[in-house]
Order: sequence, then structure tokens, then C-alpha cells
Amino acid sequence: MYYLGLDIGGTTIKAGLINEANRVLESRKVPTVIDDLGSLISKLTELIRDFQKSGSIDAVGIGVPGLRSTKTHVIATSPNIPCLTNINLEASVADQVHLKVVSENDANAGAYAEFICGAGTGMQHLAYLTLGTGLGSGLILNGSLYAGASGYGGEFGHTVIDPNGRLCACGRQGCVETVASGTGIVTTTRERLKIAPHSLLNEIAPPLTAEKIYEAAVRGDETAREVFAETGRWFGLACANLINLLNLEMIVIGGGVMASGEVLLGSAIEIARQHAFASSFADCQIVQSRLWPDAGMIGAALLARDR
Amino acid sequence: MYYLGLDIGGTTIKAGLINEANRVLESRKVPTVIDDLGSLISKLTELIRDFQKSGSIDAVGIGVPGLRSTKTHVIATSPNIPCLTNINLEASVADQVHLKVVSENDANAGAYAEFICGAGTGMQHLAYLTLGTGLGSGLILNGSLYAGASGYGGEFGHTVIDPNGRLCACGRQGCVETVASGTGIVTTTRERLKIAPHSLLNEIAPPLTAEKIYEAAVRGDETAREVFAETGRWFGLACANLINLLNLEMIVIGGGVMASGEVLLGSAIEIARQHAFASSFADCQIVQSRLWPDAGMIGAALLARDR
Repeated sequence: MYYLGLDIGGTTIKAGLINEANRVLESRKVPTVIDDLGSLISKLTELIRDFQKSGSIDAVGIGVPGLRSTKTHVIATSPNIPCLTNINLEASVADQVHLKVVSENDANAGAYAEFICGAGTGMQHLAYLTLGTGLGSGLILNGSLYAGASGYGGEFGHTVIDPNGRLCACGRQGCVETVASGTGIVTTTRERLKIAPHSLLNEIAPPLTAEKIYEAAVRGDETAREVFAETGRWFGLACANLINLLNLEMIVIGGGVMASGEVLLGSAIEIARQHAFASSFADCQIVQSRLWPDAGMIGAALLARDR
Repeated sequence: MYYLGLDIGGTTIKAGLINEANRVLESRKVPTVIDDLGSLISKLTELIRDFQKSGSIDAVGIGVPGLRSTKTHVIATSPNIPCLTNINLEASVADQVHLKVVSENDANAGAYAEFICGAGTGMQHLAYLTLGTGLGSGLILNGSLYAGASGYGGEFGHTVIDPNGRLCACGRQGCVETVASGTGIVTTTRERLKIAPHSLLNEIAPPLTAEKIYEAAVRGDETAREVFAETGRWFGLACANLINLLNLEMIVIGGGVMASGEVLLGSAIEIARQHAFASSFADCQIVQSRLWPDAGMIGAALLARDR
């Protein structure tokens, strides 16, 4: 039995064929489509048919960067891929390929993958957080993917941690995502550069990115290191909130920022320790993802199998 | 079949006998014991034996103001009743009365009561919040009382919402409880009185309490009304975080402060609407408790029956 996972991101679509043993047998990446639903569905359909040439596919899972309703299967909001808003993507794709197709929020799919065959295997209560451009998150509670009333649960990146803080892309102020994300790292750096004219960061060719800031940190730039430590402190405070509210066994952290994040992770764990109840903190491991950057794709395939 | 619920508070112990139909047949209140475990157990034992005179009791549930481990049944922390810390209260009481005895965090017990026979009947995902001196909370997720790894879940009052905010009784800074609670109301009032020398509140005999501030609000005092509105804004922001993270169907609000809280509730709902995702907010009713002040006592009895 083979399952195809598709993960629709802001720049690429990742596709991977998974077998019963949760192994990725084959994978591909193609550019995404943001604003034309017809083209997007054609691209997805084409990908599925290409993979079908390699062998029979039993079901397809699609990870989407948006809120998917468990009641109607429609995507209620999708800020980064606007053409998906109010669309039942899984039905549209199933119409074309005549296969079982399921869809799920990408970070939820990632949480499911880490739970089934990643860092969180055997855990009953975990949060999967991806620090990328934004901050994605999904929850496994009592051994299953937590959906809430309509499947919109798990939006940890858009909980407010600093009511007088930065304006968020979502329109609110002081969301966790405004400080603990790639975008947050760039903003924090810009703020600090005003008071650190001698930092190596001033010599970086634009655009300023979290990756370039990390490279400066590795080269020993004090401002860059302090930016990662500060980001870690915010992230740790936010993790403490999750730990106090949900008494988790594990927080699994993925995303482009974490790939380069020892300073950040160390600072986050220390602050989470200070801000969570000792008894709850003692229950919770904070670890790096084992499946990132493929967690969303793998999780989508697993959900196609298990749902 | 009869079940006895005991709710150990900071000033009183409430006891109530519940029948199979979730009805309170008889209830009593006695002063609490804070610092002597032997006396507290004697008092609980005495209460149970008194109720046994009225008829046979099948099981006893005890609501405690602390974190109870689901693994060891020991109370890990109990700031308001220090003698309970590190005690297996249910085993100690069971030894005396030779009945099935269970214990549970008081707000968790309250959440269970609202879920079984209160405002949240029929809901699958709800938070029960009590605005009293502090802010207690319990979660029902996927139709059952949420415990987390060790039973410490649901500590919403000690999630940080204002990192530069007030020092909390728990030692952290800016917990939701520091602004959205009776203590928060008194502190907010003190801060505002410095800039409102003409408020009626200046004429109140000490000690200043949330209840007296509410009475001033009812008499039309502008400062007092603004304090309740501000408390509601903080509370609403915190509720939006819960809604975005957990996509709840309902937030049930009890506690002494809410008994007098239309201004607070109105302001909270408006701010929650502004700060939660529209699709998630639409799923969530924010309502007053139906069982407060007896929710903890009733929930303890129901847990004695159902666990």
C-alpha cells in the first residue's frame, strides 16, 4: 500500500510517496501556485499522476497553509495561498484523480508525522512548532491530532504574548509569531542595528534574512548572537505558556530557523524552565524535529492512510 | 446511589450530597484548615460521617486548590493550603472512611460539573474559568476532562500575557491571573486612584475588595466602571488566546467576580471577538457558569461516581 503526501508551501509544493512502514520512497519539489486555483489543482493532479506511474497509490494527503474545517472540509482561511480560501480542495482534487484525498493544516500534519514516526513517537501529549517565516503549530493531545470544534485548533503562533508588541501579519498585536519566527528575527535585528552601528550585520547585502543573521552569529557577531538569544527568550516564554496550560510531554521544534538554532533553543529551554510550573516542566522534553523539512508532507500521507 | 462532593477552599470547605440525577440533595459549609494536615483530614472524615447518617454514600470526591498527579495521586503543589503539598489526600481519607475517594483540582472538578450538568452540557470542547481571588481553570477537550501528562493541565491563570506586567503570587511576571481576577481588580483600582482623586472609591473603608469596587461601579462611579472594563479587556485578550489555540465551543465563566460582572463580560467578549480568528470565534460561546459557586463541589461528586 502506497500513500502520497503533498505539502503546499508559499514557494514550493513537496510531494513524497510513503509506504506502510512510514518510509519515504520517492520525493519531488515543484514551484507552488498562489493565486490561480485552476492551475494549482492542475499542478497537484499532474504530480499525483506522475507518482502513479511508479506504482499504485491508495490515498493522497494534502498539507495546506490554512485553517481547514473538519465539518465541511473547506479551507476557511489561507493567507499565503489566497486562491485556496473557501475551497474544498480535497474534493476538487479527488474529482480529478478518483482517489481518496484528505487535506489538513500543514503544521497539524507535521505534528501527526512527528507523533507517528518522528521525535514524538510514543508520546500522548505534544506540540509541534515550526519556526519558519512564521510560526506554525499543531497539537497531539491524548494520543490524537487535536482539532477542536471545527479543526481550527492549534494556532499557537497567533496567541498574544505581548499586548503592546509588534503588529502581526494577521492584524493583531503581539502574537507569538511576531517575535518567535524568521520574520521576528529580522525585525529584532533591525531594531538592534539602530543601536549597534559596528555589527557585521550592517555589511550584509540586502535583503536581511534569518539565515544571514544566523551566519553572522556563527562568525561571532555579538548582535546576531543576542538576536537569537532574545528570540529564544520569547519563544521559551511562549513554550512555558503551552506547558502550564497543557502539561505536555514534549515540544517538538522544526522549521528553517531551528535548523540553525542551538543558541535559540538553549535560551528557550532555560526561560521555559523559569516560567513553567516545576512539576509541569519536569514532564516536558523540548527537542528538535526529526522529520523537518518533510514532516508536513509525511504527515499528510499518514493522514491519508489513517483517516 | 449517593455521592459526596467536598470542595476545599481557602476559607471554607463545601460539602454536598448528589444523587444519580446530578441533583444536590443536601449541602453544608464549614471553615477550612490551612496548615495542619491531621486536623484537615479529621474535619473531612467528620463531614463524611455526618453525611453517612443521612444515608449510604457510594463514593467521595474532593476538590483541592492545587495540582494533583494522575500518576501518583499526590498533590504536587497547593499554595493556598500548604499542608496538602506532597500528600495523597484521597488515600489518607479513604483509610479513615473505607470508601472510594477520588480527588481533583477544584477548577478541573468545576469544568467537569459544567460539562456534565451545567452550562456546557453537550459540548465537546470547553474551558471553565473562575474569576475569584485568583483565576482557576479547567479544560474539557474531546468530551473528557483534560489532564495532560500528569494531571497538571489547565493552568490558564498562569500563562503569561504581559511579560512586563505585574508580579504574580506564583513568582512569575504578567500571568493572566495578575490582571483578570479579584486581586487584579484591586490592583488596577489602586493604580487608577492615584490619577482619580475624586472617585467614590477613595471613601470606601479598607480593605478594598473587588466586591466593594463593583458596588461603586453600580452606584455609577466612573473609575470603578473603567476598572471592570479594563479587567474585561485583559480577560477577553486571554480568552482569544484560548480560542485560537483550542478552537473551543464554549468558555464558561464562574467565580465571585463574575457574579457581578456584566460590564466585565461585555468588554471581554468584544475584545475576544477582535483578537480571535473570526472562524474560531464564531464557534465559541462565552457564557456565565450555571453551577457556580457549587461547581467544584458538584464536579468532585460526579468524578467520584464516574472515575
